[in-house]
Amino acid sequence: METRQQTDIEEKIISRRRAFDGLILHIDHAEVLLPDGRKAMREIACHIGASAVLPLDAEGNVTLVRQFRTPVGRALLEIPAGKLDDPGENRLECARRELREETGLAAEEWIHLTDMASTPGFSSEIISLYLARGLSQGDTHPDEDEFLNIVKLPYSEALAMAESGRLTDSKTLCAILLARPYIEGGAT
Amino acid sequence: METRQQTDIEEKIISRRRAFDGLILHIDHAEVLLPDGRKAMREIACHIGASAVLPLDAEGNVTLVRQFRTPVGRALLEIPAGKLDDPGENRLECARRELREETGLAAEEWIHLTDMASTPGFSSEIISLYLARGLSQGDTHPDEDEFLNIVKLPYSEALAMAESGRLTDSKTLCAILLARPYIEGGAT
Repeated sequence: METRQQTDIEEKIISRRRAFDGLILHIDHAEVLLPDGRKAMREIACHIGASAVLPLDAEGNVTLVRQFRTPVGRALLEIPAGKLDDPGENRLECARRELREETGLAAEEWIHLTDMASTPGFSSEIISLYLARGLSQGDTHPDEDEFLNIVKLPYSEALAMAESGRLTDSKTLCAILLARPYIEGGAT
Repeated sequence: METRQQTDIEEKIISRRRAFDGLILHIDHAEVLLPDGRKAMREIACHIGASAVLPLDAEGNVTLVRQFRTPVGRALLEIPAGKLDDPGENRLECARRELREETGLAAEEWIHLTDMASTPGFSSEIISLYLARGLSQGDTHPDEDEFLNIVKLPYSEALAMAESGRLTDSKTLCAILLARPYIEGGAT
């Protein structure tokens, strides 16, 4: 890797305090020491972390969920996902739970695709992405105020939707695109 | 597309008020009407929007920036990006500006890859992703408290880093993976 410029970029947190406790969001203000010795304030949306899973069946279909997302004002087609129950929860267990609750699916094979920072400029959220194969169907148990439609479609169609701008959610785009080598052959 | 279940999922905002005004984050509380007639509260991190760009030179190299991201506690390798100056700013103009400020590069050809919702469960942020070709080099003008290293590497290496978990930032993963058809042939 060629680096054309190499300067110290690390920021060190000097002090940190809670600025806002919301329903789900907790905002911290952190005073940081910049590499040049000056100080600056950083604002951090503290997030417990999440897991998300692309379930792929033996016929090459994936199962997605369509949910209304009030922050962006419309329904989005997404892979099943949810927050960790507590900071120490195993991320694979969280993925198993969310897949079961939202789609009723269980899976025998789990492939860790990556850990993704959704928007690291202002949030600590890290989403662990998985590909799940060897599926079996049970009942769904969505959260009480969670309304969603389950959508099953060929992986090839989901990939075409990702590449043509018809999928918007970042974790969904990443999972579909990162799963490609496992589905089209090569990686196992 | 096969839909196994079709229920009304739309939430309607009944009322909305500002709950927190931070340094960069503005949090709204919205009361919504659920599809079943009940009400619920939603919390929204209001974001003005952003643009991000993967610059690709004639030799097949991409230019990324390494920045320390205090919310996730480490430095991340990312594509050049930045917030809109105002809600009405043209997203391509924003991408041009951020590319110039962070890397000194200008580009003749701009390809819109997609518009990505970074984390639509709690934020309104939409990032427009571009592939830029036909590059020419000028001077960099980073923001005063923005410390970054410019890293130039072959696109093939960036793709391998994305597929092996060595890139974490969602917009960077999406742009590198979505640019593939334009770089490896096929789409133009």
